[in-house]
Formats: sequence, C-alpha cells, structure tokens
Amino acid sequence: MKGYAMLKIGETGWIEKDRPKCGPRDAIVRPTALAPCTSDVHTVWEGALGDRHNMILGHEAVGIIDEVGSEVQDFKPGDEVLVPAITPDWDTEACQRGFPSQTGGACGGWKYSNFKDGVFGEFFHVNMADNNLAILPEGMSREAGVMIVDMLSTGFMGAENAAIELGATVAVLGIGAVGLSAIAGARLEGAGRIFAVGTRPISVEVAKKYGATDIVSYKNGDTAEQILEATGGAGVDAVIVAGGGPEILLDAFKMAKAGSKIANINYFGKGQGDKDTVPIPRIDWGFGMADKDLITGLCPGGKTRMERLADLVTYGRVDPTLMVTHTFKGFDKIEEALFLMKEKPRDLIKPVVLLE
Amino acid sequence: MKGYAMLKIGETGWIEKDRPKCGPRDAIVRPTALAPCTSDVHTVWEGALGDRHNMILGHEAVGIIDEVGSEVQDFKPGDEVLVPAITPDWDTEACQRGFPSQTGGACGGWKYSNFKDGVFGEFFHVNMADNNLAILPEGMSREAGVMIVDMLSTGFMGAENAAIELGATVAVLGIGAVGLSAIAGARLEGAGRIFAVGTRPISVEVAKKYGATDIVSYKNGDTAEQILEATGGAGVDAVIVAGGGPEILLDAFKMAKAGSKIANINYFGKGQGDKDTVPIPRIDWGFGMADKDLITGLCPGGKTRMERLADLVTYGRVDPTLMVTHTFKGFDKIEEALFLMKEKPRDLIKPVVLLE
Amino acid sequence: MKGYAMLKIGETGWIEKDRPKCGPRDAIVRPTALAPCTSDVHTVWEGALGDRHNMILGHEAVGIIDEVGSEVQDFKPGDEVLVPAITPDWDTEACQRGFPSQTGGACGGWKYSNFKDGVFGEFFHVNMADNNLAILPEGMSREAGVMIVDMLSTGFMGAENAAIELGATVAVLGIGAVGLSAIAGARLEGAGRIFAVGTRPISVEVAKKYGATDIVSYKNGDTAEQILEATGGAGVDAVIVAGGGPEILLDAFKMAKAGSKIANINYFGKGQGDKDTVPIPRIDWGFGMADKDLITGLCPGGKTRMERLADLVTYGRVDPTLMVTHTFKGFDKIEEALFLMKEKPRDLIKPVVLLE
Amino acid sequence: MKGYAMLKIGETGWIEKDRPKCGPRDAIVRPTALAPCTSDVHTVWEGALGDRHNMILGHEAVGIIDEVGSEVQDFKPGDEVLVPAITPDWDTEACQRGFPSQTGGACGGWKYSNFKDGVFGEFFHVNMADNNLAILPEGMSREAGVMIVDMLSTGFMGAENAAIELGATVAVLGIGAVGLSAIAGARLEGAGRIFAVGTRPISVEVAKKYGATDIVSYKNGDTAEQILEATGGAGVDAVIVAGGGPEILLDAFKMAKAGSKIANINYFGKGQGDKDTVPIPRIDWGFGMADKDLITGLCPGGKTRMERLADLVTYGRVDPTLMVTHTFKGFDKIEEALFLMKEKPRDLIKPVVLLE
Repeated sequence: MKGYAMLKIGETGWIEKDRPKCGPRDAIVRPTALAPCTSDVHTVWEGALGDRHNMILGHEAVGIIDEVGSEVQDFKPGDEVLVPAITPDWDTEACQRGFPSQTGGACGGWKYSNFKDGVFGEFFHVNMADNNLAILPEGMSREAGVMIVDMLSTGFMGAENAAIELGATVAVLGIGAVGLSAIAGARLEGAGRIFAVGTRPISVEVAKKYGATDIVSYKNGDTAEQILEATGGAGVDAVIVAGGGPEILLDAFKMAKAGSKIANINYFGKGQGDKDTVPIPRIDWGFGMADKDLITGLCPGGKTRMERLADLVTYGRVDPTLMVTHTFKGFDKIEEALFLMKEKPRDLIKPVVLLE
Repeated sequence: MKGYAMLKIGETGWIEKDRPKCGPRDAIVRPTALAPCTSDVHTVWEGALGDRHNMILGHEAVGIIDEVGSEVQDFKPGDEVLVPAITPDWDTEACQRGFPSQTGGACGGWKYSNFKDGVFGEFFHVNMADNNLAILPEGMSREAGVMIVDMLSTGFMGAENAAIELGATVAVLGIGAVGLSAIAGARLEGAGRIFAVGTRPISVEVAKKYGATDIVSYKNGDTAEQILEATGGAGVDAVIVAGGGPEILLDAFKMAKAGSKIANINYFGKGQGDKDTVPIPRIDWGFGMADKDLITGLCPGGKTRMERLADLVTYGRVDPTLMVTHTFKGFDKIEEALFLMKEKPRDLIKPVVLLE
Repeated sequence: MKGYAMLKIGETGWIEKDRPKCGPRDAIVRPTALAPCTSDVHTVWEGALGDRHNMILGHEAVGIIDEVGSEVQDFKPGDEVLVPAITPDWDTEACQRGFPSQTGGACGGWKYSNFKDGVFGEFFHVNMADNNLAILPEGMSREAGVMIVDMLSTGFMGAENAAIELGATVAVLGIGAVGLSAIAGARLEGAGRIFAVGTRPISVEVAKKYGATDIVSYKNGDTAEQILEATGGAGVDAVIVAGGGPEILLDAFKMAKAGSKIANINYFGKGQGDKDTVPIPRIDWGFGMADKDLITGLCPGGKTRMERLADLVTYGRVDPTLMVTHTFKGFDKIEEALFLMKEKPRDLIKPVVLLE
Repeated sequence: MKGYAMLKIGETGWIEKDRPKCGPRDAIVRPTALAPCTSDVHTVWEGALGDRHNMILGHEAVGIIDEVGSEVQDFKPGDEVLVPAITPDWDTEACQRGFPSQTGGACGGWKYSNFKDGVFGEFFHVNMADNNLAILPEGMSREAGVMIVDMLSTGFMGAENAAIELGATVAVLGIGAVGLSAIAGARLEGAGRIFAVGTRPISVEVAKKYGATDIVSYKNGDTAEQILEATGGAGVDAVIVAGGGPEILLDAFKMAKAGSKIANINYFGKGQGDKDTVPIPRIDWGFGMADKDLITGLCPGGKTRMERLADLVTYGRVDPTLMVTHTFKGFDKIEEALFLMKEKPRDLIKPVVLLE
C-alpha cells in the first residue's frame, strides 16, 4: 500500500509499505478524512522525536473499518470511526495510575508517526480497537470528526487542567488550532473573561466566535503587561499556554495571579541550544511560593473521550469546523496539505484532506 | 421603617421596625430590586425554619448603599450593589475549613429572613460589607442582578458539585428557577446531553434556551425509566436534584450511572411525617457500593462569587433575565409578588419587584 | 476439583466442579491462603445477591499460579500472587470513566462468588491476569497478603473517600476488620483524633494499635451524642461508616460537621422490609444544604492497587496480621472458618485458612 | 522595647523600637519560644526580599498574649499561643479564591520580617488574632509548638501538594527541617517507600525516624539516577523539592514518573545571575506533555491549620522535637541561634530559644 512518510529528518515522500497486520484486539482502518498537524512539522523538519526512517506520518484521522481482530466486539468492517490521535494500551500500569496517555513511558500513548506508522496511508493500524475507537455519529461531518481527535481533545485538556472556576478570567497564549480549541474549552469550562493572545486575523475571528472577549497582540507591547493592565493589575486566574517559543513561560507566570494554574499544551518540540531547558521566572513564580502551578499533559485518547467530545459537537456546544480553512479532496493531496501546514500562510488555521 | 414580614407561621403582613444599625464593617442598603424565593414560601407557610415572629422576609436583592461602617473600604453610599443571599462571616472557622456557607453552624451563612430581618424592608443590613457585596456592573440590569444573588449561585453550585466532565450526560430534576439555573450551569461546566425533567411550558422553553437537549415529563411515565431508555440503559453521569418531594432521591439514584454524582440543591423544607428522613434506594445505590455520591451544599455567597457570576452575565455566557416572567414596580408590590410565588401560576418562573 | 459452595440461599457444602478454563489473558491459581468475609455470610444466609446455586464461595485469596494464558506476560506458573477481591475488566468503559470497580454495571468488578465461582476451590480463575494480579512480595506472610486483598483495600478506600485533611478529626463506625482497616487508613491519610465506635474488646485493642484515640460504645448512650460532646459540640470532619444496620446513616449525619464527608464502606446487604430504602436524617442533613456529602464505592482492585498496599505493609506503615485472630491449616477447614465468621464469637476479628 | 533586627543587607544587631500598637482585632504577644529560619538567613545575607532597614527579624514563635483588641473574642491576656509564620488577612479576595497565603498579592500572608517587624522582639503584633492564633495545647512543649508554626506547616504542605496516593513512592530532596517535615508529612499522607536525598548524619537519623525508607546521597553519584535504578527505572510518583540550588528541578523532573507531581517547598531566595530563571528540563518534562505537574505554595497559616497540626502532635502522629538539636535560654541568645542557622554546623537541624 501507499503512504506519505518521513524519509529522514527534513525529508518526506510517498513510499510503499505492506498493509499493517491486524492482531486479535486490533482494527485496520481506511482513512476518509485526514489532517496534518503542527507536530508532524516538528517531527520532520525539527527532528523533535529524533530520527525516523520511512515512517508514515499523520495522527489525525476519521476512517472506515476494513478489518477487525477476532476479539473485537464493538466494531465491524464498514463502520466509520473517530480515531483518537492518542491510542493508549489500556491494560498498562499507567492507566491504573490514572495517566493513560503516558502508557509504557512518557508520552507512550502517542503511537502514530512516533512508534509506528501514522494514518497517512491507504490503511492504518489501531491497537485495542474496542477501547480506542468511537463511531462517527450520524450527521457529523468528517471535517468535524477529524478536528475532534487531536485539536479539540488537546485544547480542551488545557482548559480542564486550568481548573477554571465559573466566571474566572483566563488567558490563552497562541491561537493556532490548539489554542482556539483551548478558548472553546475555556468557555465550555465556564470562564468569564477570556484573553486570546495572537495576531492572525483569520484566527482572531474564530477566537471571538469561540468565546474570546479580549484580543491581545504583541504588536501593542508586552502581552503580559497588557493583560495585567486590563485586569487592573490583578492578572488572570488561569493561563493556557498553547504556543510560543522556549521563553513563553516567562509571559505566562508574569500574567498569572498568585493562586492560579498555568496549563501547558504547547509542544516544546525544539531544543534551545546547550542547556535545553525551559525557564520559569524566579520572581514572578514568587520564589517558588506563589501558588502558581504548572500543569501539563498529553492529548487524552480513548473511546470514552471521543464519544464525549463528539456529544459536544452533536449537541451544538462547539463547532470545530470553524477551524477548517482549507479542504482538499483525494489521497494524493496529503503532501500539499502538509506543506501548507509547514508554511502557515496567513489565511490558514487547519487544512483537511477528504478521501471519499 | 416599613417591611414586609412573616408575622408567624402561615401569616404575613406589613410591619414597622427600626432602621437597622450599622456596625464598623457593615453596610445599610436600600433595595432597588427584590425577588421572592420559594424558600420564603417554605419559611412562612411550611414553617421550615421553625416559628419566627415579625421577621422581615426576603433574601434576594440589588440595592443602593445608604451607609457604611467606619472600617468599610471598598464601598461608599450611593454605590449600587449585588447582595448575595448568603452572607458568611468570613472570619470564622468554617471559612478556614473551606465551607463559608456553613459559618457558625449548619447553613449559618443564610442570615436574611432566618437569623435576622430580610431584604423586604426600606433598608436592610449587610454584615462584612467588603467581603460580601459586589458592585452592580455598569450596563447590567437590576433584573439580571437580582437573579444572580441566589438563583444562579445556587443552580450553578449544583452543576459544580456534579463534577461534570466535558461532554458528560447530565439530568436536572426540576425546572423552576433553580433548576433552570442548574441547566445553564451544567452547560457552562461542559455538559453534552442535558435531560431536563419538568412540564411547565414556560420553563421548558427556557430550559431549551439554557442548554437542555431532552425534555422529560412524568406524564409520559416514570422519568428515570425514560432517561435510562434514552441512554440505552446506561443512565447519566450526573444528576442535579433541583426540586421534588421527599422521594425524589429514589428517581435520582435510579437514573444515575454506577460511578456518578448526585448533586442536591433541593431544599427539603418540609418534613414527611413521623420518620422525617429522606430515603435513598438501597438497590439502586448498589447496597452502598455503586460509586454514586450524594453531594450537597448551600448557595455560595461573598464578593468573589458575585463578581465572577456577574462576569458570566457581562460576557454573555448566560442571560438570567430569561427567568424573569413577571415584573412589578414599587415597594408595595412585594406582597403581590410573594403570593404569586406561593401560587405558582403556569406562566410564572420568577417575579421581580423594581423599586426605583 | 473440589470447592466449598453456596448450594442455595441458606445452605452451603462441598461440591465437585470442573477445573476452570484459562483464556488467553487469564490465569488459573491454586490458593495458599484464604479468608472468609462477612459478605460471604450476607451472600449465603441473607441472600444479598439473590439466589445462587452451587456457586463456589470466597473472594479473599493468596495463591500460586498454576497456568497462564498465551498473552499473559508478567506472570508464570509457580509465582505466588495477591489476588484482589475485585478484578475489573480493565478494557471497559467504566475504567475510562475512572470507576473500574463498576465495570460492566454496578459493582460489576466483583466477580468471585457473585458472577463466577469464588476462590474456595482447589483452583480458581483470574481474568486479565497482567492487570489484576500482583506478586506476593518476598518476606510477606500469606496472612498479611490475604488481609490486603479486600479488608485493607476496602477500609483504606473509606479513608480515601473521607477526604481527610492533615490533622482532621474522624469517626469510624464499626470495628470489624473493615472498620479496623478504615482506622488504619484514616491514620495513614493523616487524621489527628480518631473516634472508633464499637465494643468488642479484641477489636478495641487493635483499634487503638491502628490509631484510634477515643473508643465510643453504645453502652454509654447515643454514640453520636457522645462524639458531639467530646468535640465540644463541633462534631467530626469525616465519618467512615463501616458497619451497622439500615439506620446507621442517622448516626453518621448527626455527628458530622456542616462541611464534612460521610464515606460509606458498609455493605447494606439486607433489606429493611417494604420500603427497602436507607434513610438520611432530614434535619441533620441541613435540609439537604449542610455540605455533608455521602460518598461510596466498592473495594478497589487491580495490580497497581495491590502493589501499593503491599508496599505499605513491606515498609512497615501498617501490620494487617493484627486482625488475624484465628488461623486454620488445610483446605478442609474452610467450612469451619466460614461458620466462625457467621457466628462471630467475641474473640474473633478475622480467620485465615492456610493451605500449604 | 528591644528587638533583634536586620539593619541592612548583610548586617544584623539589637535595636530599640516602640512596642507595637494593638488594633481592635489584633493581639500583642510576648514570645516564650523562638526559632530562627533559613529564610531569615536568606533575608539578611542574600537580600532575598530586597533591602530592609532596622526590621526586627523572625517569624517562628510561641508566646503569651499581652494585650488584645476590643473585638477579639477567643483570646485574653495570659493565654499561651501558637503563632503561625503566615498570618493572612482573612477578609481579602485571595481567601475567597482559596489562597489565603497569597493575601494582598504574591506571598502577602508572610508579614513577619517581611512587611512588618518579626517576632524577635520583646513583643510582637498579630493581625486578626481570632483567625490566626491557636491555643498552645496543654501538655505540649514550647519546642514542639515552635516547630509547628512554620516547619511542619510548610513541610506538610509539600506532602499535601504532592497528591500522594496510599502506598505511592515519594522522593524528598533536601533534609533540613523543612525536608524532614516533608518526609513526616509524606508518611502522614500514606506514602509507602520514601527516598530521602541528603547526607548530614544528624538529619539522616531523623529522616529514618520520620519514615524515610531509603537514604540517597550525591556522594554515590547522580541522585536521580540512583532513584531511577532503585525503582527499576520507573521513577517516583511524587517529588517534594525541599532544598537545593537553582538547578534542583532538573533532578526532580528526571526522577519523576510520567504522571506525577513535583511539589516545591524550596525557597528560591537567591538569584542565579543575569537571567534569574529556574530551569525545567525540556526532555525530562516530556516536551511539556509528560503529565509531570509542578505545584507550589507558601506555608499555610491561620487558626484551623495550627489547631489541626497541634492535634497531630497531641495524638502522637508526629514528634517535631526530634528536629530541635540546639536549645538556648534567654532572649539575648537569639543572635547566637541565628548565626548558628547561618553557619549550619554538621550537628544542627534546628535551634530553639526558650525565653521563660
């Protein structure tokens, strides 16, 4: 079968591979909608995960089941499914500890285009199908579905980790698709005022639709200062870090109240030279005593998560298709969509490739 | 000064009382908007709090500050303020334990028309003004404000105590003003599907606007059965009990999943005869082992709560005025509004009396 | 093979059955230590689970693995293991929701002597061996091990659900083995003062060793009154209900502070006649508003739980063998041990049967 | 009156000051036991709080009430009291948000020897006496009492923030008095295995008594490597950072499991040059996605906290006097005790000065 792959760091291309094999609890899926992710760009062009050779890319997909293993009970060939970007092995110790995304080691639930071939193939493999897949609900578009599996799940996790009290004030740093999802998530978690920090007009527009009440741009000066000023010096109850370089936590801690959460959903995929550390500001952290907590996590996967997020779309709580700015048709358009993600033109939030 | 009072159990009327005295941290407020509450009805006609003589009624008010004590720093005469129904003494042990509404004993934060004269007077007293009052935000109507101080705060607490995961399925039992607020709160906490159990058309309409996706009526059979059937036998992740008689928990536990929260915001103000207990169903509780937790609380008060809820209104997250079905003008209309609350005509959700 | 079984409600005896079959992820275990549980008594003589015919009893065991399925990776025949009383199917929806003990429906994680044969056989079956079993640590006695799998796990869950703040005051109602484990758990969770309510001298002695600071007996009057008096009227921060009849929650709510948790680990295995409900006291519950939460659950199972509890024993945090008052040797002593549990002589806390 | 003060950065001495004035809710206290703290050393010799002139030092005290304000109800002259190091204004917004130690801004609950004169005077001032003081329980030694007010409260907070599950494995970095208190706290929160990282023999001995099961020394190599090796590569469920320089978080994140808490109670009182940041290791943080959360806080104060910690001592859950290695008698010995703290001889954990 054909797949679009990372050939080595910095290089991509079409390759031929064997169709993946289906274990007793697994499924083989044929994609019907795919989306490239910024982390694909990190993986290929920044070598964020280290070197990989001829590994099929992609981890955002909706598809139709082509084959199921002998023990799979909830699905059959022909079912169209949401495929979470993160597919934990649910029978591991990390799950019993409450951290399924960290199955088998740090970020071990992230398998696609990391430990195994991704979803940009004619077929792809799903481990523990009964635990990881969810039916694409009747009436839900594939564009909506493919935005759920990573963007919404990651962005919403940022809002969940921010422990937002009803009516609390929140800042979201970065308004790419994950940041926009975090804004929608903050509204869903009951935020009152929401500051969105970003500049791209296309994103600003969606940010407002998703619930942002104030748009803050670096062009008008230090963004933390602007937010402190807008809140009368108080700062915000929670910050969701959804973008930015290695220094972004300096801003986050500066604008956060003493007594707040800083929820990171930024992928620090690029080293910063010799020290390769991420700095926290000592003073704005209150010398380690200001009750400003730094919370992290990896996109939650699994069937229940997918079903619940799908319900939010079904019942009109959020419309993820607002983030889909570019739609391609046909399997061979994956390359174009990925390069679009890499180049990030001004009018882009997220491209989707429809296959059928 | 004049006030509308409970004369004794079962009897109300206008009385004359001295203007309340202002301690150093207190304020005296002149109401500008008032609302009667179902619990005023419980207090008078069911004797829920025991006997009271010549106690001015009411605990839902917006007003203008007339006088402040010598130590009050944040307010001055002329400020228009939200007055929370619950006004804790913030310097008590219960606050340090994290339960301000239980200050000085069970439900001790509920002072108005319970331990002291309520707000249905020409003036009323506010303890610890700096801690309890919040400015009525510019642009907010008095009708909206007076719905915040008890209805939203109580209903939202139900949703908070229900520990709603994003996309979870929730049932709200009862669609009076508190139940409707719980529906709005469930949506603000990220619920997906929301069952509203109730029948009054005026309430059903608002329930849908606030986020209810399914309306369940007892007229179509056992409500728990209906919800179990609608969820394929699974039941719901959370139940908010916002109305009903002493047997209502039987329904709640029946429709709740093993692994769920039952958040009570119903005021069990009326005894049920000899035993005077509230029954939990032994089997549907899983013999005490089904991870169905019964959570309770009393309406949160205080300045921060009021400010945050006000922000939710200001930033368009919820419109509490949808619940105001009847508006009266003039102090002398309090009696009519209270009797309306007692009689509950079909077209009533909540009456408000505007004074200026 | 031979097994000691419930023949029907009210009757037990030895039966012959086929050795259980081992699925690919399962194990077959030969017991080396067994203990009967009060719930075995409920099951047989009160028909708590409904009728069962020729079902082998027992759910507390340590044993040696005799056979493992083809997919089992962490265990091999000859390994001696802790077998949790509750053995969830870890690949079910309830686990993803965070309630593994409720797998497949209310209390569905409880399989032994409920949905399948229990551990009182020459061999017994373990589902999902890699997820449910844990190695009996070197140096740990079988008596200690068999006390971990249900008694400690259930009692400790009571303490966990009680949300005990460091230094908080706790009451434990009932000082059978589960209540004693709850006392030890409350101490492990950081309780200061611990009231133990019970009278049996053998239990009182262990209660003190486990951390009880005050012993309260019904012989000296109403136990709730005694605890209220001992706390200057304040009551306790948490109550763990570990015994008592259907009316026990009346006591629990009476002695609990406004702002407290009531954690139930009592098995309400016996109906109370027509209504078959468990009553909550309306007034002591603050009419449903006193922030007294009723939390429940079913004994947590699984490998991680077993390993962590084993660590507590290994590192000397708790000595569960203090509860073992009677030791029998030989498989045929199961009957005697069970009847001892049924009769509860004054010098009994818990009997153990050692098989090798 | 006389007091021992910071004269300016790097210089201390005895000064004369007016006796503090007592507001209506305040108390004036005469110390009976005092202890210097490492943070006094930071304040004076590292200028951690910035310059201060003629500010009386000290924030750890037990004392006898000399005067109370007109509104104080719970105390009278002659009462001997525990004085928490942190004395929030309980009527501020931060308290309603749940962060009393951050009252009036970051770390604003820390008043003694920060915003006002400390406790090393003949008399000192206590704000909101009814909310902040607690009676020294009958039978409790002053040495025990003065260890509660900061050391236990801070160390225990570290254990609380570490969210320790029963039987979890914990590492405590640093075994000064705060680290030792964190070890005791981890045991009180139910930790199984506890790694203590440190080398001073006097501290190692107390660490073991407080519950440490493994002592790790940098002299045997990289401490994180040692802990990883001792746990079979798994790492620990929680790390409490109770000492170390600016690079200490590198160790903490390295030894923490994916899915863990890192609770900081280290006072990063000293800058690290130009950048003045505290580094997190990018890779060991899982690029920001490994569910390793960094939690912070400032020593909890207030009456309820003091009473609960006192109960833990009263009921024998912890003996804080094991940390008192040096005892001085007489007010004039404060200087010697402070310099001892500065020099940290090998046999020192904590000095106490008894005044009566």
